[in-house]
Amino acid sequence: MLNLDQHPFLVPFDNSFQLLQFSTQIDDYQGKSFYKEILKENLYHLDDLQHKLYAHDKFSVLLIFQAMDAAGKDSTIRSVFSGMNPTGFQVHSFKQPSKNELDQDFLWRTSKALPQRGRIGIFNRSYYEEVLVVRVHPHYLAGQRLPYEPHLDESNPNNLWSQRLESIADHEKHLARNGTIILKFFLNVSQQEQHKRFVSRIENPHKNWKFSADDLKESALWDSYMHAYEEALKATSKPWAPWYAIPADNKSVMRAMVSQIIREKLESLDLHFPDLSDEDKAKLPEYKKQLIV
Amino acid sequence: MLNLDQHPFLVPFDNSFQLLQFSTQIDDYQGKSFYKEILKENLYHLDDLQHKLYAHDKFSVLLIFQAMDAAGKDSTIRSVFSGMNPTGFQVHSFKQPSKNELDQDFLWRTSKALPQRGRIGIFNRSYYEEVLVVRVHPHYLAGQRLPYEPHLDESNPNNLWSQRLESIADHEKHLARNGTIILKFFLNVSQQEQHKRFVSRIENPHKNWKFSADDLKESALWDSYMHAYEEALKATSKPWAPWYAIPADNKSVMRAMVSQIIREKLESLDLHFPDLSDEDKAKLPEYKKQLIV
Repeated sequence: MLNLDQHPFLVPFDNSFQLLQFSTQIDDYQGKSFYKEILKENLYHLDDLQHKLYAHDKFSVLLIFQAMDAAGKDSTIRSVFSGMNPTGFQVHSFKQPSKNELDQDFLWRTSKALPQRGRIGIFNRSYYEEVLVVRVHPHYLAGQRLPYEPHLDESNPNNLWSQRLESIADHEKHLARNGTIILKFFLNVSQQEQHKRFVSRIENPHKNWKFSADDLKESALWDSYMHAYEEALKATSKPWAPWYAIPADNKSVMRAMVSQIIREKLESLDLHFPDLSDEDKAKLPEYKKQLIV
Repeated sequence: MLNLDQHPFLVPFDNSFQLLQFSTQIDDYQGKSFYKEILKENLYHLDDLQHKLYAHDKFSVLLIFQAMDAAGKDSTIRSVFSGMNPTGFQVHSFKQPSKNELDQDFLWRTSKALPQRGRIGIFNRSYYEEVLVVRVHPHYLAGQRLPYEPHLDESNPNNLWSQRLESIADHEKHLARNGTIILKFFLNVSQQEQHKRFVSRIENPHKNWKFSADDLKESALWDSYMHAYEEALKATSKPWAPWYAIPADNKSVMRAMVSQIIREKLESLDLHFPDLSDEDKAKLPEYKKQLIV
């Protein structure tokens, strides 16, 4: 087992993160079946860990997934959580905010969806969109009806994006202190691999529905997106809410890695089924007697 | 008009607040009818300001009321807001949290209730209870099922109360940046006046329902409460979320003062009805013609 704080794809906590130094592939690829085996083993343990998390009922777990289109967010969530007891987790996908949601501060719609103690909450996209897609398309801010003219000039240290990143970091610190375990995954796909997957969506009639011409427009803004991701991950990777920039050019590698990190984090919590008090335990034989008369 | 930042009962922003230096009475009392007249005038303006706030639709307003029992939270809220258009505001009273609410972080239940843009949200008690009644009765923490043993030792700068006050200050900063105008009122009643009101609740059969024996138990913890209030107000009074410690021994004075502060704050926002564009304005005569053919 790795020490999670030493993970090679952990975004450092010291503000030194540079996205370009994080590869979208791993060096020593071992073949698909190797990673499938790891995933399978992890799922087996995750099932048990989730059960204990639920019984222990003090921690909640928040897993955030962010990525460019076609990086594999949906399929990773499907692979890692399909086997689990659905009572204990919930996936929330955050698309374009509604008019009602824009009537509130930008953390409101996700706050409502935060996981309860004992449960795992998965955010497929999240409040980070406010410093990613909105940063790449600042004209979206017009729809947010902010009362003040925002400072967008990035050389101003008090610009809107810095303020939003500070709000997010404060929010996550608050959640962590109150019992939420936070893990954040940036599925780090290369533009080349993304284009390959787009081509496959176009060529395969069963995948056509996944493709839209807008995807190409967004992909053309790749560098702006990478800048926004770098700034966001750099500012908000913290010991209590770490980001992992997971190589995503190979899906089986990515799934093995994501499941491994979640498993190790949950194992580190030392979860256990609640113990009855000695007094309550002493009463059990009497209850049993009443039941089997 | 006073400058609100110079208000005599504003809790200073520089961490120098001492509750004992704030009187529960005013020096130069002018007689009941004087304050009733001020309240009446303020209500007249508030009605108009609320209408503009709603039409302007960019700011939301959060008004927080905290106080000891019988200080007059309910009656102040009733006096100041009874005349307003109920579409534009909502009162939320936060009592003891439910089991479901305790399953989330302590800001969750109030976050859901935050006012939309264009509206006034009134919190009758709030997340501040987490650093007031819970601080006075730390055994309540057991019901919160926190995963970590909290540091309660007040000499430790990282104690639970400091952490919670930091979470609250961060939360309010985030809300203010995103368009929420925050005003917080501590209705500062003396214990002597509180006891007088308790006696009146006992003597008057129509007020009996307002009295419970628990009120006396809480009043006996007066000094602990005052300590908790002092710490909370000191740590969280900020230019973007000021506390006012309003003298509450006289209800007409208190209502006049609260209504005055809300009115002056709303007036300072320079709210206005939205303007049509010249293009849209130019079309109006044509619409009118269609309507009165």
